[in-house]
Amino acid sequence: MKTFSEIQTLVNQAIEKEAKIIADKQPHGLYQPISYILEAGGKRLRPILVLMANNLFTNKIDGSLSPAIAFEVFHNFTLIHDDIMDKADLRRNRATVHKKWDENTAILSGDASLIVAYQFLAKAPDFALAKLLDLFNQTAVEVCEGQQYDMEFETQEQVSATQYLEMIRLKTSVLVAACLKAGAILGKADADDAENLYQFGLNLGLAFQLRDDYLDVYGDVKTFGKKIGNDIVSNKKTYLLIKALEQSSDNQLVELKSLLRDKQISAKEKIEKVSFIYAQLKIKEQVNEKIGYFYEKALGFLKKLTVSSEKKEGLLHLAKKLNSREQ
Amino acid sequence: MKTFSEIQTLVNQAIEKEAKIIADKQPHGLYQPISYILEAGGKRLRPILVLMANNLFTNKIDGSLSPAIAFEVFHNFTLIHDDIMDKADLRRNRATVHKKWDENTAILSGDASLIVAYQFLAKAPDFALAKLLDLFNQTAVEVCEGQQYDMEFETQEQVSATQYLEMIRLKTSVLVAACLKAGAILGKADADDAENLYQFGLNLGLAFQLRDDYLDVYGDVKTFGKKIGNDIVSNKKTYLLIKALEQSSDNQLVELKSLLRDKQISAKEKIEKVSFIYAQLKIKEQVNEKIGYFYEKALGFLKKLTVSSEKKEGLLHLAKKLNSREQ
Repeated sequence: MKTFSEIQTLVNQAIEKEAKIIADKQPHGLYQPISYILEAGGKRLRPILVLMANNLFTNKIDGSLSPAIAFEVFHNFTLIHDDIMDKADLRRNRATVHKKWDENTAILSGDASLIVAYQFLAKAPDFALAKLLDLFNQTAVEVCEGQQYDMEFETQEQVSATQYLEMIRLKTSVLVAACLKAGAILGKADADDAENLYQFGLNLGLAFQLRDDYLDVYGDVKTFGKKIGNDIVSNKKTYLLIKALEQSSDNQLVELKSLLRDKQISAKEKIEKVSFIYAQLKIKEQVNEKIGYFYEKALGFLKKLTVSSEKKEGLLHLAKKLNSREQ
Repeated sequence: MKTFSEIQTLVNQAIEKEAKIIADKQPHGLYQPISYILEAGGKRLRPILVLMANNLFTNKIDGSLSPAIAFEVFHNFTLIHDDIMDKADLRRNRATVHKKWDENTAILSGDASLIVAYQFLAKAPDFALAKLLDLFNQTAVEVCEGQQYDMEFETQEQVSATQYLEMIRLKTSVLVAACLKAGAILGKADADDAENLYQFGLNLGLAFQLRDDYLDVYGDVKTFGKKIGNDIVSNKKTYLLIKALEQSSDNQLVELKSLLRDKQISAKEKIEKVSFIYAQLKIKEQVNEKIGYFYEKALGFLKKLTVSSEKKEGLLHLAKKLNSREQ
């Protein structure tokens, strides 16, 4: 079996090679934005997960590189278009595609990215193609559904915790889950193993996303890399805010809603006052408990896998790392 | 064999059924725009071509309905996103998606359309899936390349006739060609027949697109359905204008360029004066000759097909109809 860092190197080298090939294609105006975001890096977690899952069932993982890259290119497609919709200026410390070029370029290059993802997927071995295509299609459409809910929640008066969890399941977790399942399919794993890997990824993804919400308020500014309290300042409907709105007393609700409406208040004061209500309601403890719930659930599915404990160590280690991350 | 109108009915019924299923999916904000443009009609030429080509090789064309619909849904995806990029307000006499909803909705629903197209394609029979996916991917990415060139031409000082023909080949003809080839693949046609159908479609598509340019200036306002001279008024770089710019004498070039720059001139006067230069240069005759060239080339490929003349009659009739169209 390959180590995490061996797989990481394999993925990075393959992606950098492909980014160069794409950058050379004509018309440059279409292809260079695709290459720009692909070479920009990021964790490249998704293709790594495809190959780690694949490696549980086979030692020949090279044939899975193209479909693994498909998931990264798909992820990049969502970033290009989400950044237009969210009017985001920066991504991975560089100008977003619609800022560096323009919106039309970002729309069209995003479209082409999605198709290029399918081109990488189509290079999968014959035995896996139909299954992979169904998985990829289903996942891709769910990610769009998640983005749609996310946009609708911005203007929606009330969002329940259940609705929020369903949104993050669709928007981010299913893709992590699909990567692991794709690796299993490419390794000719049996259906139960493939499904258990999917559920492992799904629950890990939910824990990961909730930890994002958690770190925004309770992260350490030195390690987090972003400003603390951004979500509070921007009234983002995080799991924390949703739980607080659900559990507030009448007085707390009046205060919380007035803080959300207050356009004069300083960021510092708003963060302090909202955090104080969170503390009264023990929101920190509740979100931690929920993260723990999904994390343990994920590990339960990993445990069910019919491969040796030694082989599972890589994924277990990765899960631990993701779950204790401070940034 | 089925008649054109039998196939048309089959396609219309299937698409209307699918449009209803899509409209019921959650979240409505994502799916209703997809259904809206799908049920709006249009000629539905692309799925009809898939089934007509398929019917040359098999009498059981029902199994090809889903991949046929994939091409229509893909076509609709391009319309949704092109209409954003072109800032178009109307499509098939209804508000465009980004006008009826908003740009973010049009971006995301367009994305979902593209994925839904792949979902229909994935329902193709196993034996055809890998070939169809490669054809579909290649075609889809070429259509994006064509749209990119089309956008670049708007601000590009000089566009040659060769570049223009390459742009319309990519933007519209390859999709027509791919529909015919897909039908052949689904009918287990041999590689030569599939390729000849592709070339038939490609050349027919080129003739079709040039006829669009022709009708803008030489169409009959009563039958054309659009205003005559729109392209002239908007300085659109059509085949006619490009040829005129290439062939103008020094004096004609000065006049033509001054007409293109003139923002005070009335539409009527601009159309008259540009048309007068076209007449001096025999542009009408030249574009007609070029249309004839592609049309005859298309028929040559149809002739090569190793199916009986009787079976070819439907496609021949359709080609004639498209080539003599006045709207």
